[in-house]
Amino acid sequence: MAKLGVTIVGLGGAVSTTMIAGVELMLRGLVPRIGMLTEEADGNPLAGRLDFVPLEEIVFAGWDVKPANLYQAALEHRVLPPDQLAAVRERLECLVPWPAVFSQEFAVNLRGDHVVPVRRHREQIELIQARIRELRNRHGLDQVVMVNLASTEAWQELSDVHRSLDAFEAGLDADDPAISPAMRYLYAANRMRVPYCGFAPAPTVPALVQQAVEAGNPIAGADGKTGQTLVKTALAAMFRVRRLRVLGWYSVNFLGNNDGLVLEAPGANKTKVLSKISVLDSILGYEVENHQVHIHYYKPRGDAKEAWDNIDIQGFAGIPMQMKVNFLCQDSILAAPLVIDLIRLLEVAWRCGERGIQRQLSLFFKSPYTPCGETPVHDLFRQEQMLLDWVEAHAARAFGWPRTVRSS
Amino acid sequence: MAKLGVTIVGLGGAVSTTMIAGVELMLRGLVPRIGMLTEEADGNPLAGRLDFVPLEEIVFAGWDVKPANLYQAALEHRVLPPDQLAAVRERLECLVPWPAVFSQEFAVNLRGDHVVPVRRHREQIELIQARIRELRNRHGLDQVVMVNLASTEAWQELSDVHRSLDAFEAGLDADDPAISPAMRYLYAANRMRVPYCGFAPAPTVPALVQQAVEAGNPIAGADGKTGQTLVKTALAAMFRVRRLRVLGWYSVNFLGNNDGLVLEAPGANKTKVLSKISVLDSILGYEVENHQVHIHYYKPRGDAKEAWDNIDIQGFAGIPMQMKVNFLCQDSILAAPLVIDLIRLLEVAWRCGERGIQRQLSLFFKSPYTPCGETPVHDLFRQEQMLLDWVEAHAARAFGWPRTVRSS
Amino acid sequence: MAKLGVTIVGLGGAVSTTMIAGVELMLRGLVPRIGMLTEEADGNPLAGRLDFVPLEEIVFAGWDVKPANLYQAALEHRVLPPDQLAAVRERLECLVPWPAVFSQEFAVNLRGDHVVPVRRHREQIELIQARIRELRNRHGLDQVVMVNLASTEAWQELSDVHRSLDAFEAGLDADDPAISPAMRYLYAANRMRVPYCGFAPAPTVPALVQQAVEAGNPIAGADGKTGQTLVKTALAAMFRVRRLRVLGWYSVNFLGNNDGLVLEAPGANKTKVLSKISVLDSILGYEVENHQVHIHYYKPRGDAKEAWDNIDIQGFAGIPMQMKVNFLCQDSILAAPLVIDLIRLLEVAWRCGERGIQRQLSLFFKSPYTPCGETPVHDLFRQEQMLLDWVEAHAARAFGWPRTVRSS
Amino acid sequence: MAKLGVTIVGLGGAVSTTMIAGVELMLRGLVPRIGMLTEEADGNPLAGRLDFVPLEEIVFAGWDVKPANLYQAALEHRVLPPDQLAAVRERLECLVPWPAVFSQEFAVNLRGDHVVPVRRHREQIELIQARIRELRNRHGLDQVVMVNLASTEAWQELSDVHRSLDAFEAGLDADDPAISPAMRYLYAANRMRVPYCGFAPAPTVPALVQQAVEAGNPIAGADGKTGQTLVKTALAAMFRVRRLRVLGWYSVNFLGNNDGLVLEAPGANKTKVLSKISVLDSILGYEVENHQVHIHYYKPRGDAKEAWDNIDIQGFAGIPMQMKVNFLCQDSILAAPLVIDLIRLLEVAWRCGERGIQRQLSLFFKSPYTPCGETPVHDLFRQEQMLLDWVEAHAARAFGWPRTVRSS
Repeated sequence: MAKLGVTIVGLGGAVSTTMIAGVELMLRGLVPRIGMLTEEADGNPLAGRLDFVPLEEIVFAGWDVKPANLYQAALEHRVLPPDQLAAVRERLECLVPWPAVFSQEFAVNLRGDHVVPVRRHREQIELIQARIRELRNRHGLDQVVMVNLASTEAWQELSDVHRSLDAFEAGLDADDPAISPAMRYLYAANRMRVPYCGFAPAPTVPALVQQAVEAGNPIAGADGKTGQTLVKTALAAMFRVRRLRVLGWYSVNFLGNNDGLVLEAPGANKTKVLSKISVLDSILGYEVENHQVHIHYYKPRGDAKEAWDNIDIQGFAGIPMQMKVNFLCQDSILAAPLVIDLIRLLEVAWRCGERGIQRQLSLFFKSPYTPCGETPVHDLFRQEQMLLDWVEAHAARAFGWPRTVRSS
Repeated sequence: MAKLGVTIVGLGGAVSTTMIAGVELMLRGLVPRIGMLTEEADGNPLAGRLDFVPLEEIVFAGWDVKPANLYQAALEHRVLPPDQLAAVRERLECLVPWPAVFSQEFAVNLRGDHVVPVRRHREQIELIQARIRELRNRHGLDQVVMVNLASTEAWQELSDVHRSLDAFEAGLDADDPAISPAMRYLYAANRMRVPYCGFAPAPTVPALVQQAVEAGNPIAGADGKTGQTLVKTALAAMFRVRRLRVLGWYSVNFLGNNDGLVLEAPGANKTKVLSKISVLDSILGYEVENHQVHIHYYKPRGDAKEAWDNIDIQGFAGIPMQMKVNFLCQDSILAAPLVIDLIRLLEVAWRCGERGIQRQLSLFFKSPYTPCGETPVHDLFRQEQMLLDWVEAHAARAFGWPRTVRSS
Repeated sequence: MAKLGVTIVGLGGAVSTTMIAGVELMLRGLVPRIGMLTEEADGNPLAGRLDFVPLEEIVFAGWDVKPANLYQAALEHRVLPPDQLAAVRERLECLVPWPAVFSQEFAVNLRGDHVVPVRRHREQIELIQARIRELRNRHGLDQVVMVNLASTEAWQELSDVHRSLDAFEAGLDADDPAISPAMRYLYAANRMRVPYCGFAPAPTVPALVQQAVEAGNPIAGADGKTGQTLVKTALAAMFRVRRLRVLGWYSVNFLGNNDGLVLEAPGANKTKVLSKISVLDSILGYEVENHQVHIHYYKPRGDAKEAWDNIDIQGFAGIPMQMKVNFLCQDSILAAPLVIDLIRLLEVAWRCGERGIQRQLSLFFKSPYTPCGETPVHDLFRQEQMLLDWVEAHAARAFGWPRTVRSS
Repeated sequence: MAKLGVTIVGLGGAVSTTMIAGVELMLRGLVPRIGMLTEEADGNPLAGRLDFVPLEEIVFAGWDVKPANLYQAALEHRVLPPDQLAAVRERLECLVPWPAVFSQEFAVNLRGDHVVPVRRHREQIELIQARIRELRNRHGLDQVVMVNLASTEAWQELSDVHRSLDAFEAGLDADDPAISPAMRYLYAANRMRVPYCGFAPAPTVPALVQQAVEAGNPIAGADGKTGQTLVKTALAAMFRVRRLRVLGWYSVNFLGNNDGLVLEAPGANKTKVLSKISVLDSILGYEVENHQVHIHYYKPRGDAKEAWDNIDIQGFAGIPMQMKVNFLCQDSILAAPLVIDLIRLLEVAWRCGERGIQRQLSLFFKSPYTPCGETPVHDLFRQEQMLLDWVEAHAARAFGWPRTVRSS
């Protein structure tokens, strides 16, 4: 049997535990197999054209700054109801995170209780790679993918060390503090040709894009497009179609889970807000003068985050109108199926020999990775078309998951 | 100078007066030229590819059941502010509606004060044609288009008389009461090869589609997609892209203008609700079990209609979530620019030799005209693509508005 | 030990099962004792002044048109979560409804599967009384109260038979179909001096008020003020205080439980809407020209009903403003604690020798019972003051629950 | 004819110009006399009991940091429509502000273009008093009232200089920078026994309360309760009545007028947020763990501010529910009539010999002035009762406005 390993940065987080518990529940038929673009059982629009790894053949592992096993972690996040978690308790209890690579300055509101015992960048990267190698051997994996589901890192401007692979390598040697934990994980993944998905908010790092291209590794990111921004990129497309001019867009959202707490730290908040705010102008074709995004930590809600948007538009003859949108959603429930889709699509991309930034996966991200000088596509429906076109182009090659991999 | 005549059924209505006053204001530079897909001045996405009739060369005229001139009518509708209307008062006062073709049974809450003096269908159709001929001669028009902006007619099931042109002609001879005023106008338009746009809610009448095809006349309808349904067909596309399952969609909307009063009559309400309710399932690919649309007449608002939607969705692992949308809009402000776009695109279609239903104009309608057995496309972004494809296909032919028309 | 019997019409309904399961859960300390005005444990504002029957000393029983025991019924209503119900399963399973008095014409969307085997009014009333007598004897009850929690009955105009006790008695003899099941229950209660609470929407019946006064029985009703109307009578008081003029109030609400299904029937819907619509004008002191209330059955929500209100107000210098309120609530969760308060307060009223309509309980009702010619107080805060004043007046008498009763 | 002078700090602001223009429009019958508790013409609840100064007999004047006359200022604020302002243009143009007392450190986002030429506290206070004296003489005024409608001052902790009149006087001598402009105005008012209303957010200053008591001057404040907080203190009272436990209250509001711009400065924002946040706990009787208030400057709206609230409540058996409130209002339209009521009620209080803090006026304020150690009443309906009780108590004395004054 062919098998795919999925190594997760932030294994014990809300998105990760929800996804893994969800997969286990789907495998047992305890919840419906819905919400994914790549799931055959749900008559999915892509599955007929490409072979995706079945849920049955995925092996999960990963790192976390907390040592709790995934049953404990999932219970604490309060996303899936306790009686559902009880049904897959044994499987979740077996999953215990590896110690994480961690830097306090990138994670102000977080405590690193369970971190690797080495402090030098190169040593940490070695440890990351060793874990992946070990996992591959233990389970006889045909391929491994890495997904970063960790909390948002504090904002920093890109500097010279991020601009070329040479500079980056030198920075690693010198333990440059500007190389964040997320960058060390991605560097390790590229070295092993392990496709990488950055689901946490993060800027595109040119040095690491260069590394991915040179190594022949497909990468995708950043910042899963789940709640408010998802709606924004659909509604903005509607305003564009009807040529209703957006005068202002005022967005607030609040959540009470760990991600929310991390976002209370001004640095992380800036990273996130910048990621959320960039989407509008490129869809509309002009600069929206008053676009505000505010994120607040609000404890009573836990993972059940909520967004409220007020949009001021101007129509025919200059007449003003308004729209309000209130989205009562679950952060992790929206994110988990995207992660499964991304894992499968990155694996296919790898098989197809794709390398560097996978633009066709922009559909899943708030801030799609973008080479310098390029503007990302944010319009949800143009993103969808990009993915469908890519699938069509690669469908012709017709190689299926288990067969091809086995023969290689 | 080449000129386009636009004859409007419901000339004194809120949409019509807003559009005509808006055109006059734009011509004088008193309001911005925004909100139209076909307006060169707003960097429109279509204008570079096709030549559209300039606003300067349109001549408006039409029918109404009320005799008021368009300044009086516009003042009463309270859509554009009085000081704006004052600036174009003289032009609007010159526009006085012709008496309308009217049947009380299709317009329960409306009084026909200003109607044609003849009662037989054939005579009424003759009068409609005579008005158009007269207008064409008086202004030396190169082409005429007809737009139906009248209030919603009461619901009736299609019967045999509507199913073939022969039956319809016989029905006209017999003054069949199932042939509504709107059908008589469309019949007259087809006879004269005057492109027709049905902007009021109405079913597709196979007999009249057949007539349009045989006569070589392009037609488009029905029911302008303006407020709540516009948003619905954008958000449903978003739910489709993310495979969030729609469990229920509860829509209310209220307005206080004449259209709202007409919709208080159960028959008209049914026509409108049916038009609004059909859009969801074809976008999503499954039947939404609980889709409700309620329309209420609520006087304090006048033309400023408002919609509120509650949507229940099911995500990953079967977890329920909710969205609420509150759209505070102006019915006529949303509709007026669509009518201008439709006039221009129908004129181009006529020049290109198109006939029958113009599917590429589905973008503008809640219930696009559809041949028997076909399902219309409701997804806003697929509709947009259909229009862009059509423009691209016809752009090659490169004939522009005044020149071609002059030489014909 | 002194004991209070509570006999419930609609024992298996959502409100009743929620209340009884809630009492059992509170007795076991499994849920907090919150939400009641009369509960000592929650530092309540009334408990220090009067002695109320402790939850421990209440015995529940009652009638229902469905035969299911209360555990089955509660599970089906999906108000309290299954794991909470499991904790009190044994107690709930012991509670099985008596067959109900039922008339199909008052309950269009309901099936009467479990009804008394006699059809004559007088016989039915005898059976009701026999059940109460039997319960009293079996449990050695010190007092009994009756609460009507059945579904809304279809609307009917009051007629002569309802206007005096003599006419009503004659109507009973003649099996007059205008005497609804709810009236037969209340008649039986009055005969036995069993205080009666009408929590379902119903008009005040003068004949039965007369009977209550003559018999010395306190009664209170009608239609529990729980969700949208509760908010309305608070906000209207606010608009009154600030002299913001209400131009229109547009209310929709939807729910998916049995009560919602019953309200789909036009007759019941009318009863409910009339009950909801009457509250505004008396608070504001003028007639609101545009007050609309729409209720819809919307299945995805079950008991989790939702209300949306749009309010148009006019302020200083005639300037218009708007407010929107969206209440996501649980019908039975809001209603259950009011029922407990009403039971306790009616019992105290009985001990105090009160008879007829208990105006001080208006706080709990959408349509407080009102003698002919009187206008009820709807302002939530004036209603609160009425109750506080009554409590103060009766506090002086200082008789407590168990002691007094025991000695009687 | 008896006359009342009203001197306004912030004469050119949005609230002030709206109020004064509104008074002029009401005097001419061009807008209805609504929205005030004290206006006889609107069947007001207080007017029958006390005599209030008629609008006809009020003379307005005041200070502002901008030199524009009130017609220019009102036009710029865009609260009342231009055609209404045109009708009272002449009157408004005659009203030109006096130069203001100003300190940049209390008004970060504001420019003081039009300020008094003296810098020492004592000199500024002299100038304030001179203006009032001059106005009184010029118009033969019977009485003068001062209202502070200036923008929010930056937050500062109270220090020793504020705690006693002696310390305050010493601080004045030493030009202590902790004595803000608002305090200098109030000090001047007290010295002249000119009743003072602090409508801008500000803490209670014990030294000035002491001064008011000793001088025999009635004062009232602070921070007009207009939009979101008004609604909050009504809904919180509702939750209290129904014993629905508030778990969290998340409030955002945005506005685009000058007040909004001032509130962008962190110091002023803090003053305002503190004023808004204090109201909840005292109404509910417990501490709400998660109460957040966020204020943002959002340009597209101008004076049309908007509030959105999410409230998480817990009901019977611990079940959670939610409410959302969206208030689309006009800041100055809500504030203006309160100012008129306050002017009139303070004048009556003065006639009645009241001195110091006027608690009966709490109804109008977010943060009612409170002596040390006292908790203010925030419940809107208890505040109303306090006012009604006070009116009742003073009604007996029966002295009317023009008569008494004339005879004095």
